[in-house]
Amino acid sequence: MIIIMKIDSPTEEIESIYSTLQSWGITPEKYVGKHNIVIGLIGDTEEIDIRQIQNLSPCIERVLRVSKPFKRVSLEFRHGESSSVVVSTPNGAVTFGQNHPLVTVAGPCSVENEEMIIETALVVKAAGAQFLRGGAYKPRTSPYCFQGHGESALGLLAKAREVTGLGIITEVMDTADIQKVANVADVMQIGARNMYNFSLLKKVAAAGKPVLLKRGLGATIEEWLMAAEYILAAGNPNVILCERGIRTFDQKYTRNTLDLSAIPTLRTLTHLPIMIDPSHGTGNAKFVPSMATAAIVAGTDSLMIEVHPNPSKALSDGPQSLNLEQFESLMLDISSFAKIMGRWPQHALTSAFKHSTFPVNSHFARTSNTMLRA
Amino acid sequence: MIIIMKIDSPTEEIESIYSTLQSWGITPEKYVGKHNIVIGLIGDTEEIDIRQIQNLSPCIERVLRVSKPFKRVSLEFRHGESSSVVVSTPNGAVTFGQNHPLVTVAGPCSVENEEMIIETALVVKAAGAQFLRGGAYKPRTSPYCFQGHGESALGLLAKAREVTGLGIITEVMDTADIQKVANVADVMQIGARNMYNFSLLKKVAAAGKPVLLKRGLGATIEEWLMAAEYILAAGNPNVILCERGIRTFDQKYTRNTLDLSAIPTLRTLTHLPIMIDPSHGTGNAKFVPSMATAAIVAGTDSLMIEVHPNPSKALSDGPQSLNLEQFESLMLDISSFAKIMGRWPQHALTSAFKHSTFPVNSHFARTSNTMLRA
Amino acid sequence: MIIIMKIDSPTEEIESIYSTLQSWGITPEKYVGKHNIVIGLIGDTEEIDIRQIQNLSPCIERVLRVSKPFKRVSLEFRHGESSSVVVSTPNGAVTFGQNHPLVTVAGPCSVENEEMIIETALVVKAAGAQFLRGGAYKPRTSPYCFQGHGESALGLLAKAREVTGLGIITEVMDTADIQKVANVADVMQIGARNMYNFSLLKKVAAAGKPVLLKRGLGATIEEWLMAAEYILAAGNPNVILCERGIRTFDQKYTRNTLDLSAIPTLRTLTHLPIMIDPSHGTGNAKFVPSMATAAIVAGTDSLMIEVHPNPSKALSDGPQSLNLEQFESLMLDISSFAKIMGRWPQHALTSAFKHSTFPVNSHFARTSNTMLRA
Amino acid sequence: MIIIMKIDSPTEEIESIYSTLQSWGITPEKYVGKHNIVIGLIGDTEEIDIRQIQNLSPCIERVLRVSKPFKRVSLEFRHGESSSVVVSTPNGAVTFGQNHPLVTVAGPCSVENEEMIIETALVVKAAGAQFLRGGAYKPRTSPYCFQGHGESALGLLAKAREVTGLGIITEVMDTADIQKVANVADVMQIGARNMYNFSLLKKVAAAGKPVLLKRGLGATIEEWLMAAEYILAAGNPNVILCERGIRTFDQKYTRNTLDLSAIPTLRTLTHLPIMIDPSHGTGNAKFVPSMATAAIVAGTDSLMIEVHPNPSKALSDGPQSLNLEQFESLMLDISSFAKIMGRWPQHALTSAFKHSTFPVNSHFARTSNTMLRA
Repeated sequence: MIIIMKIDSPTEEIESIYSTLQSWGITPEKYVGKHNIVIGLIGDTEEIDIRQIQNLSPCIERVLRVSKPFKRVSLEFRHGESSSVVVSTPNGAVTFGQNHPLVTVAGPCSVENEEMIIETALVVKAAGAQFLRGGAYKPRTSPYCFQGHGESALGLLAKAREVTGLGIITEVMDTADIQKVANVADVMQIGARNMYNFSLLKKVAAAGKPVLLKRGLGATIEEWLMAAEYILAAGNPNVILCERGIRTFDQKYTRNTLDLSAIPTLRTLTHLPIMIDPSHGTGNAKFVPSMATAAIVAGTDSLMIEVHPNPSKALSDGPQSLNLEQFESLMLDISSFAKIMGRWPQHALTSAFKHSTFPVNSHFARTSNTMLRA
Repeated sequence: MIIIMKIDSPTEEIESIYSTLQSWGITPEKYVGKHNIVIGLIGDTEEIDIRQIQNLSPCIERVLRVSKPFKRVSLEFRHGESSSVVVSTPNGAVTFGQNHPLVTVAGPCSVENEEMIIETALVVKAAGAQFLRGGAYKPRTSPYCFQGHGESALGLLAKAREVTGLGIITEVMDTADIQKVANVADVMQIGARNMYNFSLLKKVAAAGKPVLLKRGLGATIEEWLMAAEYILAAGNPNVILCERGIRTFDQKYTRNTLDLSAIPTLRTLTHLPIMIDPSHGTGNAKFVPSMATAAIVAGTDSLMIEVHPNPSKALSDGPQSLNLEQFESLMLDISSFAKIMGRWPQHALTSAFKHSTFPVNSHFARTSNTMLRA
Repeated sequence: MIIIMKIDSPTEEIESIYSTLQSWGITPEKYVGKHNIVIGLIGDTEEIDIRQIQNLSPCIERVLRVSKPFKRVSLEFRHGESSSVVVSTPNGAVTFGQNHPLVTVAGPCSVENEEMIIETALVVKAAGAQFLRGGAYKPRTSPYCFQGHGESALGLLAKAREVTGLGIITEVMDTADIQKVANVADVMQIGARNMYNFSLLKKVAAAGKPVLLKRGLGATIEEWLMAAEYILAAGNPNVILCERGIRTFDQKYTRNTLDLSAIPTLRTLTHLPIMIDPSHGTGNAKFVPSMATAAIVAGTDSLMIEVHPNPSKALSDGPQSLNLEQFESLMLDISSFAKIMGRWPQHALTSAFKHSTFPVNSHFARTSNTMLRA
Repeated sequence: MIIIMKIDSPTEEIESIYSTLQSWGITPEKYVGKHNIVIGLIGDTEEIDIRQIQNLSPCIERVLRVSKPFKRVSLEFRHGESSSVVVSTPNGAVTFGQNHPLVTVAGPCSVENEEMIIETALVVKAAGAQFLRGGAYKPRTSPYCFQGHGESALGLLAKAREVTGLGIITEVMDTADIQKVANVADVMQIGARNMYNFSLLKKVAAAGKPVLLKRGLGATIEEWLMAAEYILAAGNPNVILCERGIRTFDQKYTRNTLDLSAIPTLRTLTHLPIMIDPSHGTGNAKFVPSMATAAIVAGTDSLMIEVHPNPSKALSDGPQSLNLEQFESLMLDISSFAKIMGRWPQHALTSAFKHSTFPVNSHFARTSNTMLRA
């Protein structure tokens, strides 16, 4: 249930509503949007009559029930406004969100040694990425495969962060490692295989860092949003949703089936920012460029790309990793399409469009929004 | 098995090779590409020694085995060159293919009456589509649902063709209807539910018209290409492959899962042109614009979009149909992205880029090709 | 909608109801069950008030709406009574149905030559099967694979029928072949790949022979029942539903996933008889015995087993075919479990148990182990 | 790689082989089977020449490579002999394994209160179950649903164990809870949602108790066996594999698709004991009896059945729970089929069949029908 209040409602009025709701055993959560103040109600609201709340204050515009099983992550809970996740990195704050420039995350599947991670970090930084990814702890199907270098890899990520100023995104698999990972990571990743690991979700949420939540390979959109709900319900609103390919009946030429339609679907269901990982999504480096650029046009807020200095020698996921030159080349395409979509930092926009009358950008933004609201 | 011959090989040399192969019980098929002449060998080639063929003529550059179970549709069979399908329509020839402008097909799920089909045809023509789609025979899950108006609908399609000059694409479900459909259709559609209907594939192939082959909802990429192989093996090389969403475990917010990664995957496997149908692929009109434009950027050669003058009153598939205004609006986006990809007819290109130094187009074409060849 | 009438309702009363309903544009269909007479109403019944019908006659016990999208095949339409399909064969009538003995269908994937089909027929007959299966027309993924011997194979099936008295079940793929197949087949099979081929469903239905309808490999239970509804709606009530494995994400060790839970599910939804095909369902001869016997215990009405005199030399589906000795051995297990379930002809029961206290256990343990080790 | 040694090989000979292997960096593991002594080699064995090992001792019969990615769990690693898991319970040791009686586990989804868990425990014990299941920690899709009573529920399970002597099987979701759960549970369950939670697998393995490993709902057979391999690789050989339904495209009438063909498939791949959970597998209490008995005939070593004193009031999974009477009735069928398969304790066999010629048939027909009509 949400209460939509007039934007200029006085604080005392809101506080009065709060205390009444709390006396009913309901937890209110306030969100100040552009056009309204929204108070979300968490708790046993089924029995409450909408008119009963309506009568609490003349500043209340409307009271609505949230029809979905997910509440805090639902678009309804923000009355249709998207949210953003701001991550502070040595190079400054980076914002993930629908009304913000595209964010690029790049790096190897796993941190193999100092040389490779620093070299990769320097190249992806120079090419325009804001975040370095790299696994210290790797969930591997076989206990006999390389499991990541663990704590020492975290140290190397810290060093790469220091050298380049990039933000760090790395996976945490075990509740025992949360503090160690939180010390280094700017965003903590919950991997696809742990999307249903509700204990991990709750405890990572409590660590306070922004969380990247990958979709489970057999998880429905709704289950994925419910997993995100676990994190918000634990008090952490900073969740980014990452689609990385789902498991279907056809696994011959692609490792997974990248579900790009998740982008417009999520836009109708949740306010949370979206990331697409075409590397895991296809499992084939040759398919990454077309899927990465398609994802931008489909509206993704960020991309995660696997990059390795020497993919054929990678300890894991080599076939889906771009080499450094391929990544630099792809970043040119990514920036071109991000500019077209109006999703590139202003200075870049300026330089690219200075002498151009190219009408795509503004037009597309207009017509697409029209369509999506239709 | 294929024989790659020098481009200037004399005709007698080729004829001599032909007669030797035929004496061995092999059917040769010649394809003249840009850089080579390729002779494809169909038949029991497993026992043949590659050197035995190599020695047939000094004009033979190389002899290669086709490693895939599909032969005539494989990219190897054309030694890496894409093919095109030329369809003659009242408005002139339209070419589907990787090196040609994007082709747009639009229209209602089913032909309901004269007024709606003519109105729709006029609007989609004016907006830039080259083909009108519309079902006369509809495969419906329930025998009690509207099954299409059949022969009378074919008459209305003929009329729409006459009025607008658009090419007609319509589905044939029954071998008994092939001639009737062929009289009206410029491209004959095999629907997803009939992809495995091998009797229909063979007989439609024999009708001589180009064939649009939709992917079965539970069909692998390989099975789909094998179905296309049935058509080519029956003597009809003009096949367009249409991805329209596959069936996965998640059907709550989308009707199917649109597999856009089929585009780069097919590019590595087959020379045939590709179409994407985001309307069936998502089942939701709101998701069509982002998936249509993403498909262009991912490299599709054509799009099929469901359009209806009044979707809420449609006899079938209303929820996934755009109305006429939405389609006009989408065509502006489609043309913008097609231009960016260098996939729009020259006159359009000229006008759009006359005063522009926008570097995306040429750049992207270059880097993407580099990536895909890597 | 159905009308449940008292069992002793006079004929004139029923006729009067019939003519009233027909005057309303409704098609009534009468079914005389054990406890009631049920009149099913087909047509636009949504607007009709239940009380309006109730008032037509004092012999009407109750009027109920059929809630499912499938009507004639639904269990509700028979008010909970299962139906049976009686097939006349040279050896006498065989009945498929929940209250009848288990029926066994066996034979090769395809009819390869006279010797093999006659030999197989004689062995499966002697082992207790009532029907011979064998493909004359084969739906094959590749156009270059053996497609069945067609008409000549039908001739061999006719001969096998003559020699053994077994009923014949064979697939029809093309509407053009329906009459030829109907001349030989006692039951006409619609294969999994043609389950959505609605043109074929309607025309095969019209041929009048009982129809075996295999579940499509990506088809839901509901779609499968809707396909059966096409056959009943075309006037043919004699449909047997055959589960043969569905396509899932795991295809490494089994070709398909045999959905045995379809048996209890179908029992709650439809009155039609059920068949299980563990050969296609698993794709592995070693898994057939355990799945065949499990299917009996789960309540199947019939089994279809692939048998070949020399599986390793079979032109198609060798890996999933039992050889003749394995089939004889399996039939001992099948009969044991059918007896336990009260699903074996009385005379067999008598003879088998006359001198025995409990022979099943030790026998099964032996033969099954033999099979599993084979 | 495995070394098969003659059964009477002297200890010194084996020790000598051990020390040589260890000097090569290989970890040997000995298993004494009925017919052979098998030494499994874990480590980097790819470079080792088979003949090099063969020459180590004349007591070596054969040296074989394990072709599968899973090693310790593979049937090859035991040279084809199945293993068993012995669990000590207050009522005595219970053995799970292919050559042992069927084991039945029953109880509610979650432990709700003392009365219900004790009542259920007493009934399932009296009906013949050896283990009580009951969730203290519940993985729920929604953070707002009942999450289990946690530690207090563990206390109630301990009490139920004391009162009835039943073994306890309960799930552990969080590494922080392992010790608490291990204090009460005789078998520790890893739930389907945590099958890929490799951190949990390793730490639960280390707790030393037998582990019940449920198959992930989107997990292949191979991934499942690799997850089991994690537990064995961590030094715990006591793993039971539980199939509980996989996620497929059809979820309308069953919650999951119970993959009974996993039973014969696993038999060809692994030596580990197998359990089937038809309650989660189907999600519908009406389908449990037929799937439970089918599983026995397909060869399962154990069954897990959800039972609740009042399913309609259950805090979780009510629709798939049997009530106490239904469970008692089902146990009669279970025992009948287990006896038929030679999988029931000897004394039971004796007493049941002493005065009977064939009582199973009529009984089963009655109770099953009762269940299905319920």
